[in-house]
Amino acid sequence: MFQAAVQTFSVSAAAASVYRGVFLVGFRRYCKKTSTKLRVSEALTGAEVGADVKVQGWVRSVRSQKNNIFFHVNDGSSLKSLQVVAGAEMNDPLLTFGSAVEVTGILKKSPHQKQPVELEAEQIRVVGGCNPVDFPFKIKERHSLEYIRQLPHLRCRTNAFSSLLRIRSEATAAIHSYFKDHGFVQIHTPIITSNDCEGAGELFKVEPSGPDFGDDEEFFSVPAFLTVSGQLHLEVMSGAFSRVYTFGPTFRAENSQSRRHLAEFFMVEAEISFTESLKDLTKVMEDMFRSATERVLARCVEDVDLFHRHVTPGHRWGCDLMTEHEKHLVKHCGNVPVFVTDYPYDLKPFYARDNQDQPRHTTAAVDLLVPGIGELCGGSLREERLDLLMARLKQVGLEDNYSWYLDLRRFGAVPHGGFGLGFERYLQCILGVDNIKDVIPFPRFSHSCLL
Amino acid sequence: MFQAAVQTFSVSAAAASVYRGVFLVGFRRYCKKTSTKLRVSEALTGAEVGADVKVQGWVRSVRSQKNNIFFHVNDGSSLKSLQVVAGAEMNDPLLTFGSAVEVTGILKKSPHQKQPVELEAEQIRVVGGCNPVDFPFKIKERHSLEYIRQLPHLRCRTNAFSSLLRIRSEATAAIHSYFKDHGFVQIHTPIITSNDCEGAGELFKVEPSGPDFGDDEEFFSVPAFLTVSGQLHLEVMSGAFSRVYTFGPTFRAENSQSRRHLAEFFMVEAEISFTESLKDLTKVMEDMFRSATERVLARCVEDVDLFHRHVTPGHRWGCDLMTEHEKHLVKHCGNVPVFVTDYPYDLKPFYARDNQDQPRHTTAAVDLLVPGIGELCGGSLREERLDLLMARLKQVGLEDNYSWYLDLRRFGAVPHGGFGLGFERYLQCILGVDNIKDVIPFPRFSHSCLL
Repeated sequence: MFQAAVQTFSVSAAAASVYRGVFLVGFRRYCKKTSTKLRVSEALTGAEVGADVKVQGWVRSVRSQKNNIFFHVNDGSSLKSLQVVAGAEMNDPLLTFGSAVEVTGILKKSPHQKQPVELEAEQIRVVGGCNPVDFPFKIKERHSLEYIRQLPHLRCRTNAFSSLLRIRSEATAAIHSYFKDHGFVQIHTPIITSNDCEGAGELFKVEPSGPDFGDDEEFFSVPAFLTVSGQLHLEVMSGAFSRVYTFGPTFRAENSQSRRHLAEFFMVEAEISFTESLKDLTKVMEDMFRSATERVLARCVEDVDLFHRHVTPGHRWGCDLMTEHEKHLVKHCGNVPVFVTDYPYDLKPFYARDNQDQPRHTTAAVDLLVPGIGELCGGSLREERLDLLMARLKQVGLEDNYSWYLDLRRFGAVPHGGFGLGFERYLQCILGVDNIKDVIPFPRFSHSCLL
Repeated sequence: MFQAAVQTFSVSAAAASVYRGVFLVGFRRYCKKTSTKLRVSEALTGAEVGADVKVQGWVRSVRSQKNNIFFHVNDGSSLKSLQVVAGAEMNDPLLTFGSAVEVTGILKKSPHQKQPVELEAEQIRVVGGCNPVDFPFKIKERHSLEYIRQLPHLRCRTNAFSSLLRIRSEATAAIHSYFKDHGFVQIHTPIITSNDCEGAGELFKVEPSGPDFGDDEEFFSVPAFLTVSGQLHLEVMSGAFSRVYTFGPTFRAENSQSRRHLAEFFMVEAEISFTESLKDLTKVMEDMFRSATERVLARCVEDVDLFHRHVTPGHRWGCDLMTEHEKHLVKHCGNVPVFVTDYPYDLKPFYARDNQDQPRHTTAAVDLLVPGIGELCGGSLREERLDLLMARLKQVGLEDNYSWYLDLRRFGAVPHGGFGLGFERYLQCILGVDNIKDVIPFPRFSHSCLL
C-alpha cells in the first residue's frame, strides 16, 4: 500500500548538510497571536462575530473622517468586500486604492444595513503599496470592458473581471459535476494531433523552435497540428465506455478579430454509445445546459447579478452577433434556444450519420442556436456502419488516413453520437456579454497574444 | 432572467418546412418494453435484483455448455463485468469476444460466489460483431502494456487501460475537488503564449498551416509558443485572488523517447498569495497529494488493485527511473517522499525568491521527490520585491520582455508562491507504472503522434 509520509530537508549549494525535518501535520498558524485567519467570504457570513481575526487582501475603497478611517478589503473570494474601521491614528499614506493589506482586529456586527459585519482594526499592515497615479484603474470609476481588456495582467483586479473569473470557475466545476453525476468518464484528449477532424479548415502547425531538428525533419515524424476537436479521440473511447467527455482548449487559425472568434477557446465535448436517435443527444445537451446554468445562477448570485445589472445591461438577447439565417430561425421560434436538426448530407463532415432519406438526403446532425450568440452546440450521430463510412471516406479521398477510424467500426461497433459546446459562447450566453474576448482570461486571436 | 426553454425542429436542404417540436422533458425510454436500462456498475450493486432490465456493452468472455451459454458484458462503468446466462438456443455466431451486445432479461442473485448477480437473458442482440481473427486482442490473454501501447485506438478495450482511464478521470476530479474545497479559483491559463516561462528551454512554435499568412508575417504579430507552465499567468491572478490553480496540458519539445518524458503532459499548478514561508506551499502540496490519493484509493479500489496485483507487480518503488542524486536523497530518507528545499540561487529561474543568505545564496525553492519517479512537484516562493526582481531581470537581459510582470510588483504586491505537479508522474507514482506513456490516453513524444 502506498505510504504518504513526507519528510522535509534542505540542500545547500554544496548539498552537504541534510536536515531531516519533522512530518508536516496539523494546521500551521501564520501569526504569533491567536487571530483566526479568515477569507473575506468567510468573514462576511457573520459566523465569527466577536472573534479576533486576520484578513488579507487588496483595498477597494478608502474614506477618511475626522476620527476614523473606513476601507474595504477584497481577496477574490467574493464580489463583496469587508469593511474595515480604524482609528484615524492608524492611517498610513500607503493605504490607498489597490494596495495590499493585512488587518487584524475584532469582527463586529455592523451598525449599517449595507454590510452584515465589519472589522474593527487593531493592527493594519500595508504589505504592498500601489501608486494611485500610475495605477491604471481609478477609485470609484467603472472602467469599460474594452478599457480593461487592454490590461490583461491587471484586469482581474476589477469587480467585473473578478466576477467573470469566479463565474467561469464555477461553470467549469458545474459542467464536470454534471458529467460525473451521470456516469461519464473524463478523457484528456490530446492537444497536438496528426488528425484534421473537420477534413479541412484553419489549422495551427506545431514545430519545435529549437535547433535540434532541421527543416527537413518533423519532430513527430508526421505533420502535427493543434486540435480543432477531441471528437475522434472520444470516439476511440466510445468503443469501451458508454459515456465519455472532454473539456479543454481547441484552436482555429482564423484570421479574424471579430467579437465571435478566438484562436484558442474551450470546448466541452461528449460522446455517448448505444444511441438510438438525435433525441439521445439533445436530451444530454439540454440537461447539461440546464444543470450547469442552475448551479452557476445559484452559487454566483452576486457575480451574475453584477453582469446583468451593470456590465451588460440591455445587451442581453441582442441579435447583432448572429448570421442572418440563425437570427431568423431563433426569432421564428420566439427568441428561445432552438435545436436545428437533420442537415443536408453534402454540408456535413464524413463522420455524420447518413439518414438515408433520399432525395432530401440529410444527416443526423444537430445544432443548438441561442439568441444573441448563434451556434452554441453542434453534434451528430456518427456513421457506425462500416460500408457506408468506408464509401464516404473513399469518396473524399481520406480512407488511408482513417484506417484506424474504420477499425473502430470493424470491432464491436455501436450506434453512437456526440456534441461539442463552445464554453466561451456559453458564458456569453448566460451573462449577456457581447465580446468573446471578455469571458476568457487571456484571449488569443489574430495579431494578439498578450502575455 | 435567463430562460432555458428549448424547442426542436428540423430543417431540410430547402429549409422549407419547419417542425416545432415539443419541449424535451422527463426521461425518454430507449425501448418499447418496460425494461429498465442499467449500466453494468448499477446492475452489479444488486439493488435491482428481480427487475426486468436492459444492459448494453462489450463481450469480455464467452463460454458455451450443452444447455446454456455464459458471457460477460462490460460497458466501462467498472472493471467488473456482468455475467449473462442464456439458453443454448439463444447463441449467435456473432456473439464473440469484443462484440457489442444489448441484453434484456431478469436480474437474479447469482448462485456463485464470484459475482453477486447475473442476468438471465430473454433477448440478446449483437449490435456490432468483432472478427476474433482480425481483432488484435485475444480472449483470456493478458497483453503487455508494451503491446497495447502500439494500438492507441483500441487499448481502452483492455482491462488494464480501461482501469487506468477510470483512475485518471477520478484523480482529475479529486484534484479539482481538493482545490474547490479549499477556496481556490480555477483559471484556464492559455496554451498559446508569447512568454517563455523558464527563460530558455525546448519550446514548440505555433504557426498557421494555411496560406493566409505569408512567411514574413506572424499570425499573432509576435512569435507564439506552446506553454511550458501556467505559472506567470497564475501570478497575474494572484494580484486579486488569494488562491488560484490551473490543470491542463503543457509542452516540451524534448528530443527524448525515454520512459520519463512526453512532449505533451498535464500539470496541476497552484499559486497562493500572502505566503510567509515555503511551509505554506509544502503544506498544500502534501494536503493535495494525500487528499487526491485517498479519494482515488477509496473510489477505484478494484482498478487500483488490478495495477498493484497484475499490471505492475514488483515494479513499484523501483529506482531505475531517477537520476542518481535524487535516488540517493530519497534512499537516505528511507524511501518515502521527500521535500528538498532552498536550491542555489544560480540554478533557479529569475522569479524564485532570493533567500539573501550569502555566502550560500539560495532561493526559496522546493522539489518533492518520490521513490521510483524522482521529481513529482516543483515550486518556489516568487520574488515579490520590485528592486530585487528588476535587478535580476536586468542581469539576465529580460527586463523589457517582462515589464508587465514587474507591474504586478508595482501595484499591491504580496508575498506569494506556487508549485506545479506533473499529473502523469503522479499517476505513475500511485500505480507503480514504469513508463509514462502508459498513463496518458494519447502519448506524444519525439517521432510519435499517433491519431
